Amino acid sequence: MIIQLNKNIKPEDKNKIISELKTKNYSCSEVKTMQGNYLVAIGKAEIDIRQIGVLKGVADIHKVSDNYKLVSRKWKTDYSEIDLGNDIKIGSNNFSIMAGPCSIENEEQIIEMVKHLKANNVKIMRGGVFKPRSSPYSFRGLGIEGLKVFSKHCKEAGIKIITEVMQVSQIEDMIDYVDIFQVGARNSQNFNLLDELGKTNKPVMLKRGLAGTIDELLFSAEYIFSAGNEQIILCERGIRSYEKAYRNTLDINAIPILKEKSHLPVIVDPSHAIGIRQFIEPLALASIMAGADGIIFEMHKQPEIAFSDGQQSLNYAESEKLYKNIRKTYDFRSSLS
Amino acid sequence: MIIQLNKNIKPEDKNKIISELKTKNYSCSEVKTMQGNYLVAIGKAEIDIRQIGVLKGVADIHKVSDNYKLVSRKWKTDYSEIDLGNDIKIGSNNFSIMAGPCSIENEEQIIEMVKHLKANNVKIMRGGVFKPRSSPYSFRGLGIEGLKVFSKHCKEAGIKIITEVMQVSQIEDMIDYVDIFQVGARNSQNFNLLDELGKTNKPVMLKRGLAGTIDELLFSAEYIFSAGNEQIILCERGIRSYEKAYRNTLDINAIPILKEKSHLPVIVDPSHAIGIRQFIEPLALASIMAGADGIIFEMHKQPEIAFSDGQQSLNYAESEKLYKNIRKTYDFRSSLS
Amino acid sequence: MIIQLNKNIKPEDKNKIISELKTKNYSCSEVKTMQGNYLVAIGKAEIDIRQIGVLKGVADIHKVSDNYKLVSRKWKTDYSEIDLGNDIKIGSNNFSIMAGPCSIENEEQIIEMVKHLKANNVKIMRGGVFKPRSSPYSFRGLGIEGLKVFSKHCKEAGIKIITEVMQVSQIEDMIDYVDIFQVGARNSQNFNLLDELGKTNKPVMLKRGLAGTIDELLFSAEYIFSAGNEQIILCERGIRSYEKAYRNTLDINAIPILKEKSHLPVIVDPSHAIGIRQFIEPLALASIMAGADGIIFEMHKQPEIAFSDGQQSLNYAESEKLYKNIRKTYDFRSSLS
Amino acid sequence: MIIQLNKNIKPEDKNKIISELKTKNYSCSEVKTMQGNYLVAIGKAEIDIRQIGVLKGVADIHKVSDNYKLVSRKWKTDYSEIDLGNDIKIGSNNFSIMAGPCSIENEEQIIEMVKHLKANNVKIMRGGVFKPRSSPYSFRGLGIEGLKVFSKHCKEAGIKIITEVMQVSQIEDMIDYVDIFQVGARNSQNFNLLDELGKTNKPVMLKRGLAGTIDELLFSAEYIFSAGNEQIILCERGIRSYEKAYRNTLDINAIPILKEKSHLPVIVDPSHAIGIRQFIEPLALASIMAGADGIIFEMHKQPEIAFSDGQQSLNYAESEKLYKNIRKTYDFRSSLS
Repeated sequence: MIIQLNKNIKPEDKNKIISELKTKNYSCSEVKTMQGNYLVAIGKAEIDIRQIGVLKGVADIHKVSDNYKLVSRKWKTDYSEIDLGNDIKIGSNNFSIMAGPCSIENEEQIIEMVKHLKANNVKIMRGGVFKPRSSPYSFRGLGIEGLKVFSKHCKEAGIKIITEVMQVSQIEDMIDYVDIFQVGARNSQNFNLLDELGKTNKPVMLKRGLAGTIDELLFSAEYIFSAGNEQIILCERGIRSYEKAYRNTLDINAIPILKEKSHLPVIVDPSHAIGIRQFIEPLALASIMAGADGIIFEMHKQPEIAFSDGQQSLNYAESEKLYKNIRKTYDFRSSLS
Repeated sequence: MIIQLNKNIKPEDKNKIISELKTKNYSCSEVKTMQGNYLVAIGKAEIDIRQIGVLKGVADIHKVSDNYKLVSRKWKTDYSEIDLGNDIKIGSNNFSIMAGPCSIENEEQIIEMVKHLKANNVKIMRGGVFKPRSSPYSFRGLGIEGLKVFSKHCKEAGIKIITEVMQVSQIEDMIDYVDIFQVGARNSQNFNLLDELGKTNKPVMLKRGLAGTIDELLFSAEYIFSAGNEQIILCERGIRSYEKAYRNTLDINAIPILKEKSHLPVIVDPSHAIGIRQFIEPLALASIMAGADGIIFEMHKQPEIAFSDGQQSLNYAESEKLYKNIRKTYDFRSSLS
Repeated sequence: MIIQLNKNIKPEDKNKIISELKTKNYSCSEVKTMQGNYLVAIGKAEIDIRQIGVLKGVADIHKVSDNYKLVSRKWKTDYSEIDLGNDIKIGSNNFSIMAGPCSIENEEQIIEMVKHLKANNVKIMRGGVFKPRSSPYSFRGLGIEGLKVFSKHCKEAGIKIITEVMQVSQIEDMIDYVDIFQVGARNSQNFNLLDELGKTNKPVMLKRGLAGTIDELLFSAEYIFSAGNEQIILCERGIRSYEKAYRNTLDINAIPILKEKSHLPVIVDPSHAIGIRQFIEPLALASIMAGADGIIFEMHKQPEIAFSDGQQSLNYAESEKLYKNIRKTYDFRSSLS
Repeated sequence: MIIQLNKNIKPEDKNKIISELKTKNYSCSEVKTMQGNYLVAIGKAEIDIRQIGVLKGVADIHKVSDNYKLVSRKWKTDYSEIDLGNDIKIGSNNFSIMAGPCSIENEEQIIEMVKHLKANNVKIMRGGVFKPRSSPYSFRGLGIEGLKVFSKHCKEAGIKIITEVMQVSQIEDMIDYVDIFQVGARNSQNFNLLDELGKTNKPVMLKRGLAGTIDELLFSAEYIFSAGNEQIILCERGIRSYEKAYRNTLDINAIPILKEKSHLPVIVDPSHAIGIRQFIEPLALASIMAGADGIIFEMHKQPEIAFSDGQQSLNYAESEKLYKNIRKTYDFRSSLS
């Protein structure tokens, strides 16, 4: 059960609601975000919600039969919109393109890429500075110094940054230079990291785990929301299967299902979801028709010499074709009844 | 290596080619279909193909590095087209819609459905009369008598039939009443059945196995082709994964990959690939953008009382909306550069 | 519900039971095997089984809540034993070793192998004469003539034969030369084949599908039993997973679960379940401790020149060590409380 | 390539080796553990290792073709032994039993359990105080205060503690109260956590990811070793598969493969690997025969009222039977040739 509280509810009124719920064997979690003020009440007994609804300070009240609560569309049927400022928004009636290199490699690369994105009206740039790598001997990214340079050029150009955060201690250092924190697939159930990101006021894009279930993804999002941050973006990036003809299996089924179950925006990452450059475009367009709110993909001026993920990065010309076709496809989808 | 032979090659010329290849340690399979006359030569030695190319009776010759040969696009770069007659074609520049019930239940159902399909200009009707069921105690279909009634009404309406064949002994009984034989997921590697269907002159739609690889699907198609029948349609119908939120995982990656690897048409079955009625449409449209040559789906006048698969069957109104959106999406895809 | 009938039940008594059940909306399947005479009654209503139990001709009656019925341990709590004659038995308090080549290659191979098995007191020889192969261009086995030679030498030596049957039409040709029909993983849901094998009086070893569930395996066994043959052996041979370090994943969990759910013997095939020669022994011994009733494995005099599966075949010396350790491990398991 | 350095190598000698390798385009990572002093050199050129072997300060030198290096058995063919003090050792010729509750619930539980373990000569107790839970609303453990009480009673009884660490900031708080840090399946690729644990001097048990590959597990172990800690234990705890009859699929294949590839001890967790109480014992005994160096399992005085994982926890009587059979089975395995 989710109880939306009035913004200025008095502490004694809130306590009264909580103690009333306690008498019915419901435990309460208080959640305060920039957008709202909630109680999440968990219990088994049947309750007549009107008994709670009439209490002082209650704005609205919803039964939610799902195990995750705040991220469920059972109580918030309208899709959430995330505002990055400068009229750049994600979710609801917006469609987002996020492009950039797997890893930030040097300043020259950033300058060129920013120019390319600006020329193509792409508003969000991806680029890793902390790289989770299977092997400890692989390139692990330029780190915080790289991020500062990345940020400087993007700010000048009015482009927003999405980049991966790998651990709690990085949050403080990164927060001034980041517009969206990305949680990678390997950290999809790093609950401490999710808790801490829930205490920030920056949007978080949460990738599905390597073999994560749809429910696990929504539960992980619930961690962030219940810790106080409701600016959450879900990302489908392919799941692990038995098939060896490609890198991961894009779970296209997950897109309409996530849009049914949750009010959060769903972004698709076709680069990791197939891992083969020439198939990024058909997967991106397919994902749009399945209901995606945006596409994030990897690009590089010269994919063949990229520090990482070159085999799945598009070059500039391929990217320009993709922007165009993504936009046409989103317009086409919007035209369907 | 595939050697295309002249249609009227003399036996002695063919034998000369075969013996020439034998001297180079290549073994040959002769394949004669309605469309062509081939030798598939398998061996390890490096051959200068011009030495074979100059022999009498050779029309063309191609190296094929894939393990499957005849179904590969390495030698036949143009996509194959299958002609069902009455100007109904599958593959290449055609888009196919196949709709109908999971199981044929009775004559009245057929009559109504045929009328519905005709009204909506749908040219191919699906409907099972032999049903593979996990449990021996489930409804197993109306059998050959059901097929005859099914066929009668479709022929009158100019509608083609696709229906599943489960075993070799059914082929002879079914062949006069069927336009496309369907091989189900559970028989995807029933090699004897594939061999025998390869000896017929009817098109065969081959479903991917429950957890079949892309390579296994192509190898199974190779069985049919190498037995003499090149009218083969591949069908992606979802694969088995760990996710429990739906029935199967539609492998959208497989669509562009199959279109890259093989010249055969690729049809997608969103009904089995997700198993939930309300998500059939987004998956169908996504599959088109990924490159599918057609969609096959389950429908029923009253899904809630269907003998089987009701939870994934569309009703008539939903189907009509889907036909429209499928057609618009295919036109849209064709308009993209 | 399973109703065990008296062996000599009069037709009118049986009909009375069936019509009594029909009045309660239960449909009945009659099953007559060499061992027994059953009615499998499927319905939803609650029935007081004593009302049926008192009818003439009823020997015993059991509620079975599983979806599969005859193969369930819910009605037959004692494990089944299969008698191959000559005091060679499978299941219950017997432990079976089945060894032999992947493919029968020639008579000399058979003669040598039979001698080796006899010297090591191994009573059941495996060897394929019809080989399901992914590629149509691979060696497909020596066929029925190979089987006849195989049978001749085994009969002389008192060794039983287990070999794969791939299609219905082979059953009649093979039946005189086979002691156990093997159904391969790719045919695990070839329901027509299962039905026909159910009409024979030869034991059938049913392999789990490539990615078959435990329930699907038991349902497939139910096909055989309900068609009239209760001499069924289940075979765990590894399942398909995402891991690439080996061929298949031996599902060791399945062993105790199958022994809990079903009264049928469970044989494990470590050769296919890992596909790497040096690990066959630890997997075989592990399977015994998990509750297996037997081990089937591939061997070859010179694995490096085997026609197929050489990489997972043991040579004679390795096999002899394995026989010894298998037997010691089974004795050890039997000694535990 | 791994270069073992003399313990007291002079900095100038080490630098000379590094610069010599640099001239051959090899990059070096220095690794200093309590046991040794290594250079891990990564490069592509063929090197005559004798040229490096003769340099001052080099104790030994090994080519390692695997992508992971320090955890490979290619250079350290003898199995590693981890000494917990008080003559309690893991790996090599030791067999370990680790038992205890999923979660530490209260002091009384600890006192009773310690008594039970001492009475049964079990030397290592498991018990979670920081619990990774899919849902933020589930019980997340007693935290550091719980650990202190846990530690007090175990120290008095001479029992070692293994417990899960979830994030970097917990390490410092926990280190005095822990004998083995456990890294859970969800953190198996939390590289920052692995790095930091690599800087401690406490043994680390690393669980395989939910759907982690064998290579990923070894790479994660390489993180810990290369950061300076070679006291690493690998843990197989079941992988995610399509099968729904149980919680996870115990990957029994992984046991002999890990023992072949790596010198690190391999512990098996049958509780999580099947999730059903009655099947823990057969899986534990099977794992021993497959080569495991130890078993970790969940127990509870009254599983039916456990805070978490009750369905897979053994009670005291079941645990006592299991200790006995584990020990007999290990002795039996040791007796085999």
